[in-house]
Amino acid sequence: MDSCVIPLRHGGLSLVQTTDFFYPLVEDPYMMGRIACANVLSDLYAMGITECDNMLMLLSVSQKMNEKERDQVMPLMMKGFRDTAEEAGTSVTGGQTVVNPWIIIGGVASVVCQPNDFIMPDSAVPGDVLVLTKPLGTQVAVNAHQWLDIPEKWNKIKLVISREEVEQAYQEAMLNMATLNRTAAALMHKFNAHAATDITGFGIIGHARNLAQQQKNDVAFVIHNLPIISKMAAISKAGGNLFGLLQGTSSETSGGLLICLPREQAARFCAEMKSSRVGLSGAVGQDGGAGDGQQAWIIGIVEKGNRCARIIDKPRIIEVPYRGSVVSVQEGSNNNASPPEVQLT
Amino acid sequence: MDSCVIPLRHGGLSLVQTTDFFYPLVEDPYMMGRIACANVLSDLYAMGITECDNMLMLLSVSQKMNEKERDQVMPLMMKGFRDTAEEAGTSVTGGQTVVNPWIIIGGVASVVCQPNDFIMPDSAVPGDVLVLTKPLGTQVAVNAHQWLDIPEKWNKIKLVISREEVEQAYQEAMLNMATLNRTAAALMHKFNAHAATDITGFGIIGHARNLAQQQKNDVAFVIHNLPIISKMAAISKAGGNLFGLLQGTSSETSGGLLICLPREQAARFCAEMKSSRVGLSGAVGQDGGAGDGQQAWIIGIVEKGNRCARIIDKPRIIEVPYRGSVVSVQEGSNNNASPPEVQLT
Repeated sequence: MDSCVIPLRHGGLSLVQTTDFFYPLVEDPYMMGRIACANVLSDLYAMGITECDNMLMLLSVSQKMNEKERDQVMPLMMKGFRDTAEEAGTSVTGGQTVVNPWIIIGGVASVVCQPNDFIMPDSAVPGDVLVLTKPLGTQVAVNAHQWLDIPEKWNKIKLVISREEVEQAYQEAMLNMATLNRTAAALMHKFNAHAATDITGFGIIGHARNLAQQQKNDVAFVIHNLPIISKMAAISKAGGNLFGLLQGTSSETSGGLLICLPREQAARFCAEMKSSRVGLSGAVGQDGGAGDGQQAWIIGIVEKGNRCARIIDKPRIIEVPYRGSVVSVQEGSNNNASPPEVQLT
Repeated sequence: MDSCVIPLRHGGLSLVQTTDFFYPLVEDPYMMGRIACANVLSDLYAMGITECDNMLMLLSVSQKMNEKERDQVMPLMMKGFRDTAEEAGTSVTGGQTVVNPWIIIGGVASVVCQPNDFIMPDSAVPGDVLVLTKPLGTQVAVNAHQWLDIPEKWNKIKLVISREEVEQAYQEAMLNMATLNRTAAALMHKFNAHAATDITGFGIIGHARNLAQQQKNDVAFVIHNLPIISKMAAISKAGGNLFGLLQGTSSETSGGLLICLPREQAARFCAEMKSSRVGLSGAVGQDGGAGDGQQAWIIGIVEKGNRCARIIDKPRIIEVPYRGSVVSVQEGSNNNASPPEVQLT
């Protein structure tokens, strides 16, 4: 499970908590703080929990930074973390800071819940569909962005993407990583989700397998569609199947939720995700221009099976456009449009 | 405060939690795990909380260790942490491990409490006395032990201590650091403690000052006695006031509680600490031979004052013997003997 659930001595309540810490992967300290916070909270959201009672922040300052660098970088990172906590309706009270060779940022999220506040991730049934709430490809985007300055790496991918597109893909990845999965958590209750997990270090196939193994019923998860940040699939291919993106093994940071939903509910789930007003407004510092909901995709089905997960041969790649470049299209589009249908091979 | 207290939405309950992580300071991985766990829990105990609902473990494996070293060291460290959690009546469910240049070990302790489960550390009154539940000097003992192998350092202190004594002092420091402050937390309720904190990185004077600043009443803490692991004061002097041990600035790890108690209760608090059966039995792997309670000392008084703390000129140094060497004396001693009286200058 993404979070631990501890029964308490008081009135049927449970303590649900999770911790995560890692190393910076984007250059903007403020966005890094936001991403770290969204990533910690994501483990609660994966259980359909929408509230968090408290967060602790875990930090290490790098001993290699001079005082000026510390004073510039660390407050921004902490502000990003706190701002995202506030966006999530919680606050950061407590934490610990140490000095280390490397910068570390992470945290702890805790909530005391009643039994129906959370959804145990074990009740998928054959006939459910799989929904994903953020596109894949964050690792490829972050690495491609670093390769802009490494000629031998850049030469491998420059035929399939421009420098400008790499920059846009990187921005898109940052926004996605900083986006809270909170709306999805709330909609899991409304549309009777049977199980969910969040996509992080093990890639979509790793987390799909973990989730499949926890199911009470004999089910298998079959993934047909891979929504990927635009051009990241091409980069992965050009680099010789970089990170295994198309096999679903590429790490994601603060990825979306993978949710098992009753088939008849999934389209409405996606539509409500899209029309929700939560999302990136805070993260991009805009006044809601990018705040018109989050895309979600039906990416697969739950079959009878042996608690395993697989991606079909030749899955459909859904190229997810950079929002920076498609605002005009989004504004003109129908927010309630149906999500892409699952192609059953 | 040593822990954060978050009011919950449910029936007057509060979530109290704390986190701490640091780098190994003793060579024995198992003991290091025990110390880390005792250190995390100590922040709850300082608030008079005796139960913990859940712990998370925070770990980083050093990238400089080879696979064999990792397989030897990390499981022992984790076992030490878990064993101490078990001794404390709680368990470790959840956590995070990363790879880092340095080993990191720490954790999170959380508990959901009713209002009278914890003691807000703000109610000291003039006339209270200050009690300390572990001797000072852990930093000096740990460093002196490292200096056994560094001739230029060893030469500075070898006139005041033998190699054997350094080894004993180091063992004594390890045992103290691995000892839970849980008995003290329970006795805080029984004897109406007005405020407490645990002694860690800022040394006794730093934490005494922090505690003084939080008081509702106009008080000052005046420390008259310094219980110190035997010979550590001499080492500190020989090294040219090493770490400021006699000024109270020497860091402690997983130190004792500093407690403000009504004067008429303090002697009985110390006596019950001494006669308690909790303590080192687990930590030393012995069958209770060292388990006959913990020493506590009345070290000072609470006066009317300006929310400050100080150590008197020429405080009385209480040389706390190594238990390994004084078992026979302890066995013959009266466990209910009164603690040393405060010397009012």
